[in-house]
Amino acid sequence: MYQSTIIITLRPSILDVQGKAVEHSIHTLGMNQVGNVRIGKSIHLTVNAVSEDEAKRIIEEACKELLANPVMEDYSFTIKKV
Amino acid sequence: MYQSTIIITLRPSILDVQGKAVEHSIHTLGMNQVGNVRIGKSIHLTVNAVSEDEAKRIIEEACKELLANPVMEDYSFTIKKV
Repeated sequence: MYQSTIIITLRPSILDVQGKAVEHSIHTLGMNQVGNVRIGKSIHLTVNAVSEDEAKRIIEEACKELLANPVMEDYSFTIKKV
Repeated sequence: MYQSTIIITLRPSILDVQGKAVEHSIHTLGMNQVGNVRIGKSIHLTVNAVSEDEAKRIIEEACKELLANPVMEDYSFTIKKV
């Protein structure tokens, strides 16, 4: 069994309105040292696979087929045996 | 300057309806090896701080004051110098 965390972010060229709003709110609280805020999704899941390679293949497929929008989003993931 | 990725997740005791829906969709695509899907937010930002400790303090404050709901959500973050 493998535990994976997938991070899905908007591509850098795409304006992140939600990130801009959060950055503005952080500045309003006085934390002006914070910048470049961008918001993404994190997806946490387990994969029942016999090898790490098989688990990676399944996660890649899930990202490509369902979880990420290939036009607007990038994805990355980490995986560990549990 | 420090780059940080913050992960905000629903607490384990709270039902994640969105995660359940995504898990159902993944199974519909034939990937029955996937389970325990939970969805969170990822927040990517930079902090202009003189030390890693100061950057961590600012990120902790942003999480507690604004980014995470302490009743329903947990947060964790990674940080690296850029």
